[in-house]
Amino acid sequence: MINLRYPLILASNSPRRQQLLREGGFEFTIQTSPVEEDFPEDMNVIDVPTFLARKKAEGLIKLSMKNIILSADTIVVQDELILGKPGSPEEAREMLTLLSGTLHRVYTGVCILYQNKCTTFHEETEVYFKELRSAEIDYYIKHYAPMDKAGAYGIQEWIGLIGITKIRGSYLNVVGLPVAQVYNKLDELNLLIN
Amino acid sequence: MINLRYPLILASNSPRRQQLLREGGFEFTIQTSPVEEDFPEDMNVIDVPTFLARKKAEGLIKLSMKNIILSADTIVVQDELILGKPGSPEEAREMLTLLSGTLHRVYTGVCILYQNKCTTFHEETEVYFKELRSAEIDYYIKHYAPMDKAGAYGIQEWIGLIGITKIRGSYLNVVGLPVAQVYNKLDELNLLIN
Repeated sequence: MINLRYPLILASNSPRRQQLLREGGFEFTIQTSPVEEDFPEDMNVIDVPTFLARKKAEGLIKLSMKNIILSADTIVVQDELILGKPGSPEEAREMLTLLSGTLHRVYTGVCILYQNKCTTFHEETEVYFKELRSAEIDYYIKHYAPMDKAGAYGIQEWIGLIGITKIRGSYLNVVGLPVAQVYNKLDELNLLIN
Repeated sequence: MINLRYPLILASNSPRRQQLLREGGFEFTIQTSPVEEDFPEDMNVIDVPTFLARKKAEGLIKLSMKNIILSADTIVVQDELILGKPGSPEEAREMLTLLSGTLHRVYTGVCILYQNKCTTFHEETEVYFKELRSAEIDYYIKHYAPMDKAGAYGIQEWIGLIGITKIRGSYLNVVGLPVAQVYNKLDELNLLIN
């Protein structure tokens, strides 16, 4: 359905982003370049995901004359604290205990790089977890091993189904790519053929 | 993971509800009894989904002494108007045109029937659609035939991915079953074994 003016390259190895983009009706190839996911210590939290998304795209800048490069980075924030990917099951348990019974924010930063020009934006979603029992957290970590996920959870996985009672904003933003907003931005940039 | 005090019967033929309940970690069987999906004309809109959910469960009341019967009904409401399942592609097109560029509400009513006692609740989610192009609506109806869906769309389908920019409330409620709320209610009713 979706026709773009130039071939689309997704600069992400995330199977969730690939799936969302596919279900969104985009045709694309995948290409990534290795980047260090670090950022200046004094950077505002909400600037981090676009900063990292830009890094991921810029590694492929040579391809941007004839292709559209799309990249994204998702962070989970609670009380100004960024929760990254947990290094161990223990750290995952700490993170989920922190998120239990409270509201947190998820930011996905998106970069669209075309003809050496990088357009970035971020999307914010508020997510509310019910009080999680220890047994629920343990079960989830044991069976889902969420060490590859910022904040130690996937909203589309078991703990999200039984534990997340409400959100405010884009659901797909929490999964990892705000597809409707990406589509709108490509349209604004005149990269969509209607 | 989830252990209930009695066997669970889902009184719904909806593949989406079945899938959500399964992914939520519930074991269940499926059994339905035919019901007329009508309701009193003067009924308040937000009472309709629990009324219909109760009807769907009560057809199985004989089983409720030894089983937990779970049923649900989802409606889409805009400006006090209930959008049911469209009868034709033309009606689907009218509904989506109505939803385009505006906020609407989705209510899922849930009934948990156990030992002849029916507990109902409903959950509300606000959903916002961007302005949809005619070509987008046409494409969606042609390829997804949403005649089995209240309001003529599935949030998890293509039009939801590219068209729904934000929601407020439970995402799964829009898919058809607010799993976390069902889980909580079963817990409140002391039907969950922790």
